[in-house]
Amino acid sequence: MISFLPLCAHPNPKKVLIVGGGDGGVAREVVKHPLVEEVHQVEIDDRVVELSKQYLPAMACGFANEKLKLTIGDGFDYMKKHKNEFDVIITDSSDPIGPAVSLFQESYYELMKHALKDDGIVCSQGGSFWLDLDYIKKTMSGCKEHFAKVAYAVTSVPSYPCGHIGFVMGSLNKNQDFATPKLGKSEIDSIDLRYYSSEVHSAAFALPRWVQKHFYE
Amino acid sequence: MISFLPLCAHPNPKKVLIVGGGDGGVAREVVKHPLVEEVHQVEIDDRVVELSKQYLPAMACGFANEKLKLTIGDGFDYMKKHKNEFDVIITDSSDPIGPAVSLFQESYYELMKHALKDDGIVCSQGGSFWLDLDYIKKTMSGCKEHFAKVAYAVTSVPSYPCGHIGFVMGSLNKNQDFATPKLGKSEIDSIDLRYYSSEVHSAAFALPRWVQKHFYE
Repeated sequence: MISFLPLCAHPNPKKVLIVGGGDGGVAREVVKHPLVEEVHQVEIDDRVVELSKQYLPAMACGFANEKLKLTIGDGFDYMKKHKNEFDVIITDSSDPIGPAVSLFQESYYELMKHALKDDGIVCSQGGSFWLDLDYIKKTMSGCKEHFAKVAYAVTSVPSYPCGHIGFVMGSLNKNQDFATPKLGKSEIDSIDLRYYSSEVHSAAFALPRWVQKHFYE
Repeated sequence: MISFLPLCAHPNPKKVLIVGGGDGGVAREVVKHPLVEEVHQVEIDDRVVELSKQYLPAMACGFANEKLKLTIGDGFDYMKKHKNEFDVIITDSSDPIGPAVSLFQESYYELMKHALKDDGIVCSQGGSFWLDLDYIKKTMSGCKEHFAKVAYAVTSVPSYPCGHIGFVMGSLNKNQDFATPKLGKSEIDSIDLRYYSSEVHSAAFALPRWVQKHFYE
Protein backbone atom coordinates (compact mmCIF):
# COMPACT_ATOMS: atom_id res chain seq x y z
CA MET A 1 0.00 0.00 0.00
CA ILE A 2 2.88 2.42 0.71
CA SER A 3 3.85 1.89 -2.96
CA PHE A 4 0.58 1.79 -4.87
CA LEU A 5 -1.31 4.48 -2.91
CA PRO A 6 1.01 7.29 -4.11
CA LEU A 7 1.76 5.67 -7.48
CA CYS A 8 -1.92 5.34 -8.39
CA ALA A 9 -2.78 8.76 -6.95
CA HIS A 10 -0.37 10.18 -9.56
CA PRO A 11 -1.47 10.27 -13.23
CA ASN A 12 1.97 9.45 -14.60
CA PRO A 13 4.56 8.27 -12.06
CA LYS A 14 7.53 7.75 -14.39
CA LYS A 15 10.38 8.40 -11.99
CA VAL A 16 10.20 7.28 -8.37
CA LEU A 17 12.50 7.76 -5.38
CA ILE A 18 12.45 5.36 -2.43
CA VAL A 19 14.16 6.58 0.75
CA GLY A 20 14.99 3.67 3.05
CA GLY A 21 13.20 0.43 2.23
CA GLY A 22 16.36 -1.67 2.71
CA ASP A 23 14.47 -4.94 2.72
CA GLY A 24 13.55 -4.46 -0.95
CA GLY A 25 9.79 -4.91 -0.47
CA VAL A 26 8.79 -1.43 -1.61
CA ALA A 27 11.05 -1.64 -4.68
CA ARG A 28 9.57 -5.05 -5.53
CA GLU A 29 6.08 -3.49 -5.64
CA VAL A 30 6.92 -0.09 -7.21
CA VAL A 31 8.46 -1.68 -10.32
CA LYS A 32 5.15 -3.46 -11.01
CA HIS A 33 3.38 -0.19 -11.90
CA PRO A 34 3.19 -0.13 -15.72
CA LEU A 35 3.98 3.60 -16.03
CA VAL A 36 7.04 3.53 -13.75
CA GLU A 37 10.24 3.73 -15.84
CA GLU A 38 12.97 4.45 -13.29
CA VAL A 39 13.16 3.69 -9.58
CA HIS A 40 15.95 5.24 -7.53
CA GLN A 41 16.46 4.00 -4.00
CA VAL A 42 18.69 5.47 -1.27
CA GLU A 43 19.29 3.23 1.72
CA ILE A 44 21.69 4.36 4.44
CA ASP A 45 22.64 0.90 5.71
CA ASP A 46 24.16 -1.59 3.26
CA ARG A 47 24.00 -4.37 5.90
CA VAL A 48 20.18 -4.20 5.81
CA VAL A 49 20.30 -4.83 2.06
CA GLU A 50 22.83 -7.66 2.40
CA LEU A 51 20.93 -9.40 5.19
CA SER A 52 17.63 -9.03 3.33
CA LYS A 53 19.16 -10.66 0.27
CA GLN A 54 20.41 -13.48 2.50
CA TYR A 55 17.38 -14.02 4.75
CA LEU A 56 14.41 -12.33 3.03
CA PRO A 57 14.86 -13.26 -0.63
CA ALA A 58 11.13 -12.91 -1.30
CA MET A 59 11.41 -9.21 -0.38
CA ALA A 60 14.92 -8.55 -1.68
CA CYS A 61 14.05 -9.74 -5.19
CA GLY A 62 13.00 -6.11 -5.73
CA PHE A 63 16.68 -5.16 -5.96
CA ALA A 64 17.18 -7.38 -9.02
CA ASN A 65 14.73 -5.45 -11.22
CA GLU A 66 16.31 -3.56 -14.11
CA LYS A 67 14.19 -0.44 -13.42
CA LEU A 68 15.90 -0.07 -10.02
CA LYS A 69 19.08 1.84 -9.20
CA LEU A 70 20.19 1.43 -5.57
CA THR A 71 22.44 3.99 -3.89
CA ILE A 72 23.88 3.36 -0.44
CA GLY A 73 23.92 6.73 1.27
CA ASP A 74 22.04 9.40 3.18
CA GLY A 75 18.60 10.25 1.79
CA PHE A 76 18.99 13.86 2.97
CA ASP A 77 22.19 14.36 0.98
CA TYR A 78 20.73 12.56 -2.00
CA MET A 79 17.66 14.80 -2.15
CA LYS A 80 19.75 17.96 -1.76
CA LYS A 81 21.59 16.98 -4.93
CA HIS A 82 18.45 16.22 -6.97
CA LYS A 83 16.10 19.06 -7.83
CA ASN A 84 12.66 18.70 -9.46
CA GLU A 85 13.39 15.15 -10.53
CA PHE A 86 10.86 12.74 -9.11
CA ASP A 87 7.15 12.17 -9.68
CA VAL A 88 6.75 10.20 -6.47
CA ILE A 89 8.92 9.96 -3.33
CA ILE A 90 8.20 7.11 -0.92
CA THR A 91 9.81 7.06 2.51
CA ASP A 92 9.89 3.56 3.97
CA SER A 93 11.45 4.24 7.36
CA SER A 94 11.36 3.05 10.96
CA ASP A 95 8.87 4.41 13.47
CA PRO A 96 8.40 8.17 13.97
CA ILE A 97 10.05 7.98 17.40
CA GLY A 98 13.66 6.72 17.49
CA PRO A 99 16.49 6.71 14.94
CA ALA A 100 14.29 7.85 12.03
CA VAL A 101 12.81 10.85 13.87
CA SER A 102 14.28 13.38 11.41
CA LEU A 103 12.26 11.78 8.59
CA PHE A 104 9.07 12.99 10.23
CA GLN A 105 10.07 16.61 10.69
CA GLU A 106 9.29 19.67 8.69
CA SER A 107 12.75 20.05 7.14
CA TYR A 108 12.37 16.60 5.66
CA TYR A 109 9.24 17.71 3.81
CA GLU A 110 11.17 20.72 2.51
CA LEU A 111 13.86 18.40 1.17
CA MET A 112 11.33 16.15 -0.51
CA LYS A 113 9.66 19.15 -2.10
CA HIS A 114 13.06 20.18 -3.49
CA ALA A 115 13.62 16.79 -5.14
CA LEU A 116 10.03 16.47 -6.36
CA LYS A 117 8.57 17.60 -9.69
CA ASP A 118 5.89 20.30 -9.55
CA ASP A 119 2.99 17.84 -9.72
CA GLY A 120 4.69 15.27 -7.52
CA ILE A 121 3.40 13.22 -4.60
CA VAL A 122 5.16 12.10 -1.43
CA CYS A 123 4.16 9.26 0.87
CA SER A 124 5.62 8.41 4.28
CA GLN A 125 4.69 6.09 7.11
CA GLY A 126 2.28 7.89 9.41
CA GLY A 127 1.57 5.81 12.50
CA SER A 128 -1.72 4.49 13.90
CA PHE A 129 -4.63 6.82 14.64
CA TRP A 130 -5.42 4.75 17.73
CA LEU A 131 -1.96 5.39 19.20
CA ASP A 132 -0.41 8.50 17.65
CA LEU A 133 -3.32 10.81 16.85
CA ASP A 134 -1.64 14.06 17.86
CA TYR A 135 1.69 13.01 16.42
CA ILE A 136 0.07 12.27 13.07
CA LYS A 137 -1.69 15.63 13.12
CA LYS A 138 1.64 17.33 13.85
CA THR A 139 3.28 15.45 10.97
CA MET A 140 0.43 16.48 8.66
CA SER A 141 0.87 20.10 9.75
CA GLY A 142 4.59 19.89 8.96
CA CYS A 143 3.71 18.47 5.55
CA LYS A 144 1.17 21.25 4.96
CA GLU A 145 3.90 23.86 5.34
CA HIS A 146 5.29 22.72 1.99
CA PHE A 147 2.54 20.79 0.22
CA ALA A 148 -0.73 22.21 -1.08
CA LYS A 149 -2.76 19.06 -0.31
CA VAL A 150 -2.19 16.60 2.51
CA ALA A 151 -4.03 13.40 3.43
CA TYR A 152 -3.82 10.47 5.80
CA ALA A 153 -4.61 6.91 4.74
CA VAL A 154 -4.62 3.66 6.66
CA THR A 155 -4.30 -0.04 5.90
CA SER A 156 -4.52 -3.31 7.81
CA VAL A 157 -1.15 -4.83 8.79
CA PRO A 158 -1.62 -7.43 11.54
CA SER A 159 1.99 -7.31 12.75
CA TYR A 160 1.83 -3.58 13.57
CA PRO A 161 0.55 -2.26 16.92
CA CYS A 162 -3.27 -2.04 16.75
CA GLY A 163 -3.15 -4.06 13.53
CA HIS A 164 -2.82 -1.24 11.07
CA ILE A 165 -0.46 1.39 9.74
CA GLY A 166 -1.08 4.86 8.37
CA PHE A 167 0.51 6.96 5.67
CA VAL A 168 0.84 10.72 5.34
CA MET A 169 0.67 11.83 1.72
CA GLY A 170 1.42 15.25 0.29
CA SER A 171 0.93 16.73 -3.16
CA LEU A 172 2.13 19.98 -4.69
CA ASN A 173 -1.10 20.07 -6.71
CA LYS A 174 -3.82 21.82 -4.71
CA ASN A 175 -6.53 19.97 -6.64
CA GLN A 176 -5.04 16.54 -5.90
CA ASP A 177 -7.67 13.88 -5.27
CA PHE A 178 -5.69 11.24 -3.41
CA ALA A 179 -8.58 8.80 -2.92
CA THR A 180 -9.31 8.15 -6.62
CA PRO A 181 -6.82 5.87 -8.40
CA LYS A 182 -5.66 7.32 -11.71
CA LEU A 183 -5.03 3.90 -13.23
CA GLY A 184 -8.20 2.16 -14.44
CA LYS A 185 -9.70 -0.68 -12.42
CA SER A 186 -9.15 -3.32 -15.10
CA GLU A 187 -5.55 -2.19 -15.59
CA ILE A 188 -4.93 -2.40 -11.83
CA ASP A 189 -6.57 -5.83 -11.71
CA SER A 190 -4.18 -7.07 -14.39
CA ILE A 191 -1.11 -6.26 -12.22
CA ASP A 192 0.24 -9.07 -10.06
CA LEU A 193 -0.67 -7.67 -6.61
CA ARG A 194 -1.93 -9.57 -3.60
CA TYR A 195 -3.37 -6.76 -1.48
CA TYR A 196 -3.98 -3.57 -3.48
CA SER A 197 -7.08 -2.93 -5.60
CA SER A 198 -9.00 0.19 -6.72
CA GLU A 199 -11.51 -0.41 -3.92
CA VAL A 200 -8.85 -0.83 -1.24
CA HIS A 201 -7.18 2.38 -2.46
CA SER A 202 -10.28 4.54 -1.95
CA ALA A 203 -11.20 2.78 1.30
CA ALA A 204 -7.80 3.64 2.81
CA PHE A 205 -8.88 7.30 3.01
CA ALA A 206 -12.20 6.60 4.80
CA LEU A 207 -11.44 7.43 8.44
CA PRO A 208 -13.57 7.02 11.56
CA ARG A 209 -15.58 10.18 12.14
CA TRP A 210 -13.61 11.26 15.22
CA VAL A 211 -10.30 10.84 13.33
CA GLN A 212 -11.64 12.66 10.28
CA LYS A 213 -12.69 15.60 12.48
CA HIS A 214 -9.37 15.67 14.34
CA PHE A 215 -7.33 15.77 11.14
CA TYR A 216 -9.42 17.88 8.79
CA GLU A 217 -11.70 20.20 10.81
CA MET B 1 -20.31 -0.74 13.05
CA ILE B 2 -22.18 -3.98 13.86
CA SER B 3 -25.25 -1.75 14.36
CA PHE B 4 -25.07 0.83 11.61
CA LEU B 5 -23.74 -1.39 8.80
CA PRO B 6 -26.95 -3.49 8.63
CA LEU B 7 -29.25 -0.61 9.67
CA CYS B 8 -27.99 1.68 6.91
CA ALA B 9 -27.86 -1.13 4.36
CA HIS B 10 -31.65 -1.45 4.90
CA PRO B 11 -33.95 1.22 3.41
CA ASN B 12 -36.37 1.20 6.34
CA PRO B 13 -35.20 -0.65 9.45
CA LYS B 14 -38.24 -0.08 11.68
CA LYS B 15 -38.07 -3.18 13.85
CA VAL B 16 -34.75 -4.60 14.99
CA LEU B 17 -33.78 -7.72 16.94
CA ILE B 18 -30.50 -7.94 18.86
CA VAL B 19 -29.41 -11.44 19.92
CA GLY B 20 -26.84 -11.27 22.72
CA GLY B 21 -25.27 -7.87 23.25
CA GLY B 22 -25.62 -8.08 27.04
CA ASP B 23 -23.32 -5.10 27.65
CA GLY B 24 -25.88 -2.78 26.04
CA GLY B 25 -23.47 -1.22 23.53
CA VAL B 26 -25.28 -2.42 20.42
CA ALA B 27 -28.67 -1.30 21.78
CA ARG B 28 -27.19 2.10 22.63
CA GLU B 29 -26.20 2.58 18.98
CA VAL B 30 -29.21 0.93 17.26
CA VAL B 31 -31.71 3.30 18.91
CA LYS B 32 -29.87 6.28 17.38
CA HIS B 33 -31.03 5.37 13.85
CA PRO B 34 -33.88 7.77 13.05
CA LEU B 35 -36.05 5.15 11.29
CA VAL B 36 -35.78 2.55 14.05
CA GLU B 37 -39.03 2.37 16.04
CA GLU B 38 -38.72 -0.82 18.08
CA VAL B 39 -35.66 -2.69 19.30
CA HIS B 40 -36.09 -6.14 20.80
CA GLN B 41 -33.12 -7.71 22.51
CA VAL B 42 -32.74 -11.31 23.75
CA GLU B 43 -29.82 -11.92 26.09
CA ILE B 44 -29.38 -15.35 27.66
CA ASP B 45 -27.47 -14.24 30.75
CA ASP B 46 -29.06 -11.68 33.07
CA ARG B 47 -25.84 -11.41 35.09
CA VAL B 48 -24.08 -9.89 32.06
CA VAL B 49 -26.76 -7.19 31.92
CA GLU B 50 -26.59 -6.55 35.70
CA LEU B 51 -22.80 -6.35 35.76
CA SER B 52 -22.74 -4.07 32.72
CA LYS B 53 -25.18 -1.72 34.41
CA GLN B 54 -22.91 -1.75 37.47
CA TYR B 55 -19.47 -1.53 35.86
CA LEU B 56 -20.03 -0.36 32.26
CA PRO B 57 -22.67 2.34 32.59
CA ALA B 58 -21.48 4.07 29.39
CA MET B 59 -22.44 0.92 27.46
CA ALA B 60 -25.43 -0.18 29.54
CA CYS B 61 -27.21 3.16 29.06
CA GLY B 62 -28.61 1.53 25.90
CA PHE B 63 -30.99 -0.48 28.10
CA ALA B 64 -32.67 2.68 29.37
CA ASN B 65 -33.93 3.77 25.94
CA GLU B 66 -37.69 3.65 25.51
CA LYS B 67 -37.41 2.04 22.05
CA LEU B 68 -35.80 -1.03 23.67
CA LYS B 69 -37.53 -4.12 25.04
CA LEU B 70 -35.13 -6.55 26.73
CA THR B 71 -35.99 -10.24 27.11
CA ILE B 72 -33.79 -12.56 29.18
CA GLY B 73 -33.88 -15.88 27.38
CA ASP B 74 -32.59 -18.07 24.58
CA GLY B 75 -32.30 -16.36 21.19
CA PHE B 76 -33.06 -19.66 19.43
CA ASP B 77 -36.38 -20.08 21.25
CA TYR B 78 -37.21 -16.42 20.77
CA MET B 79 -36.73 -16.56 17.02
CA LYS B 80 -38.76 -19.78 16.70
CA LYS B 81 -41.70 -17.90 18.23
CA HIS B 82 -41.40 -14.84 15.96
CA LYS B 83 -42.08 -15.23 12.26
CA ASN B 84 -41.48 -12.54 9.58
CA GLU B 85 -41.20 -9.83 12.19
CA PHE B 86 -37.87 -8.05 11.99
CA ASP B 87 -36.27 -5.80 9.41
CA VAL B 88 -32.78 -6.31 10.83
CA ILE B 89 -31.36 -9.00 13.14
CA ILE B 90 -27.98 -8.30 14.75
CA THR B 91 -26.11 -11.07 16.56
CA ASP B 92 -23.60 -9.67 19.04
CA SER B 93 -22.04 -12.86 20.35
CA SER B 94 -18.75 -14.26 21.60
CA ASP B 95 -16.12 -15.70 19.27
CA PRO B 96 -17.07 -18.32 16.63
CA ILE B 97 -15.18 -21.00 18.56
CA GLY B 98 -16.37 -21.70 22.13
CA PRO B 99 -19.72 -21.29 23.87
CA ALA B 100 -21.33 -19.33 21.01
CA VAL B 101 -20.42 -21.86 18.32
CA SER B 102 -24.05 -22.63 17.47
CA LEU B 103 -24.58 -18.99 16.47
CA PHE B 104 -22.25 -19.47 13.53
CA GLN B 105 -23.86 -22.58 12.13
CA GLU B 106 -26.29 -23.07 9.30
CA SER B 107 -29.33 -23.80 11.47
CA TYR B 108 -28.87 -20.43 13.10
CA TYR B 109 -29.20 -18.73 9.72
CA GLU B 110 -32.38 -20.72 9.11
CA LEU B 111 -33.80 -19.45 12.39
CA MET B 112 -32.92 -15.86 11.59
CA LYS B 113 -34.55 -16.21 8.18
CA HIS B 114 -37.71 -17.43 9.94
CA ALA B 115 -37.85 -14.36 12.19
CA LEU B 116 -36.89 -11.91 9.45
CA LYS B 117 -39.19 -10.00 7.10
CA ASP B 118 -38.87 -10.78 3.40
CA ASP B 119 -36.56 -7.86 2.66
CA GLY B 120 -34.65 -8.20 5.92
CA ILE B 121 -30.95 -8.12 6.68
CA VAL B 122 -28.91 -10.05 9.24
CA CYS B 123 -25.48 -9.19 10.61
CA SER B 124 -23.25 -11.34 12.80
CA GLN B 125 -19.67 -11.16 13.97
CA GLY B 126 -17.46 -12.78 11.36
CA GLY B 127 -13.87 -13.04 12.62
CA SER B 128 -10.64 -11.68 11.14
CA PHE B 129 -9.61 -12.49 7.59
CA TRP B 130 -5.99 -12.70 8.76
CA LEU B 131 -6.83 -15.44 11.25
CA ASP B 132 -10.06 -17.21 10.25
CA LEU B 133 -10.17 -17.05 6.46
CA ASP B 134 -11.55 -20.55 5.89
CA TYR B 135 -13.88 -20.31 8.87
CA ILE B 136 -15.36 -17.07 7.54
CA LYS B 137 -15.81 -18.62 4.11
CA LYS B 138 -17.59 -21.58 5.72
CA THR B 139 -19.85 -19.21 7.68
CA MET B 140 -20.63 -17.29 4.50
CA SER B 141 -21.49 -20.57 2.76
CA GLY B 142 -23.86 -21.46 5.62
CA CYS B 143 -25.47 -18.05 5.28
CA LYS B 144 -25.81 -18.47 1.49
CA GLU B 145 -27.93 -21.60 2.04
CA HIS B 146 -30.71 -19.32 3.27
CA PHE B 147 -29.92 -15.79 2.09
CA ALA B 148 -29.89 -14.59 -1.51
CA LYS B 149 -27.03 -12.13 -0.99
CA VAL B 150 -24.12 -12.47 1.44
CA ALA B 151 -21.19 -10.14 2.16
CA TYR B 152 -18.27 -9.76 4.52
CA ALA B 153 -17.23 -6.41 5.95
CA VAL B 154 -14.42 -5.43 8.28
CA THR B 155 -13.65 -2.62 10.71
CA SER B 156 -10.74 -1.54 12.89
CA VAL B 157 -11.01 -2.52 16.58
CA PRO B 158 -7.60 -2.29 18.25
CA SER B 159 -8.50 -4.61 21.14
CA TYR B 160 -9.33 -7.54 18.83
CA PRO B 161 -6.68 -9.97 17.58
CA CYS B 162 -5.01 -8.44 14.49
CA GLY B 163 -6.70 -5.13 15.30
CA HIS B 164 -9.93 -5.63 13.43
CA ILE B 165 -13.18 -7.53 13.38
CA GLY B 166 -15.34 -8.75 10.54
CA PHE B 167 -19.07 -9.12 10.00
CA VAL B 168 -21.02 -11.56 7.87
CA MET B 169 -24.17 -10.00 6.46
CA GLY B 170 -27.03 -11.69 4.69
CA SER B 171 -30.06 -10.34 2.84
CA LEU B 172 -33.17 -12.03 1.50
CA ASN B 173 -33.16 -9.51 -1.35
CA LYS B 174 -30.99 -10.81 -4.20
CA ASN B 175 -30.38 -7.26 -5.44
CA GLN B 176 -29.16 -6.05 -2.05
CA ASP B 177 -26.27 -3.58 -2.32
CA PHE B 178 -24.73 -3.78 1.15
CA ALA B 179 -21.94 -1.27 0.52
CA THR B 180 -24.15 1.75 -0.22
CA PRO B 181 -25.81 3.36 2.83
CA LYS B 182 -29.52 3.96 2.28
CA LEU B 183 -29.60 6.94 4.65
CA GLY B 184 -28.25 10.17 3.10
CA LYS B 185 -24.79 11.40 4.05
CA SER B 186 -26.04 14.61 5.68
CA GLU B 187 -28.64 12.69 7.66
CA ILE B 188 -25.97 10.24 8.87
CA ASP B 189 -23.67 13.13 9.77
CA SER B 190 -26.39 14.62 11.95
CA ILE B 191 -26.57 11.49 14.14
CA ASP B 192 -24.43 11.45 17.27
CA LEU B 193 -21.91 8.75 16.24
CA ARG B 194 -18.18 8.68 16.93
CA TYR B 195 -17.01 6.08 14.40
CA TYR B 196 -19.56 5.43 11.65
CA SER B 197 -19.92 7.60 8.54
CA SER B 198 -21.11 7.01 4.95
CA GLU B 199 -17.48 6.70 3.84
CA VAL B 200 -16.57 4.22 6.58
CA HIS B 201 -19.65 2.15 5.66
CA SER B 202 -18.62 1.67 2.03
CA ALA B 203 -14.94 1.21 2.92
CA ALA B 204 -15.81 -1.70 5.24
CA PHE B 205 -16.62 -3.84 2.17
CA ALA B 206 -13.34 -3.11 0.34
CA LEU B 207 -11.26 -6.24 0.98
CA PRO B 208 -7.66 -7.04 0.11
CA ARG B 209 -7.51 -8.66 -3.30
CA TRP B 210 -6.56 -12.11 -1.95
CA VAL B 211 -9.47 -12.02 0.53
CA GLN B 212 -11.90 -10.79 -2.12
CA LYS B 213 -10.89 -13.70 -4.38
CA HIS B 214 -11.12 -16.24 -1.59
CA PHE B 215 -14.64 -15.17 -0.59
CA TYR B 216 -16.28 -14.26 -3.89
CA GLU B 217 -14.57 -16.12 -6.77
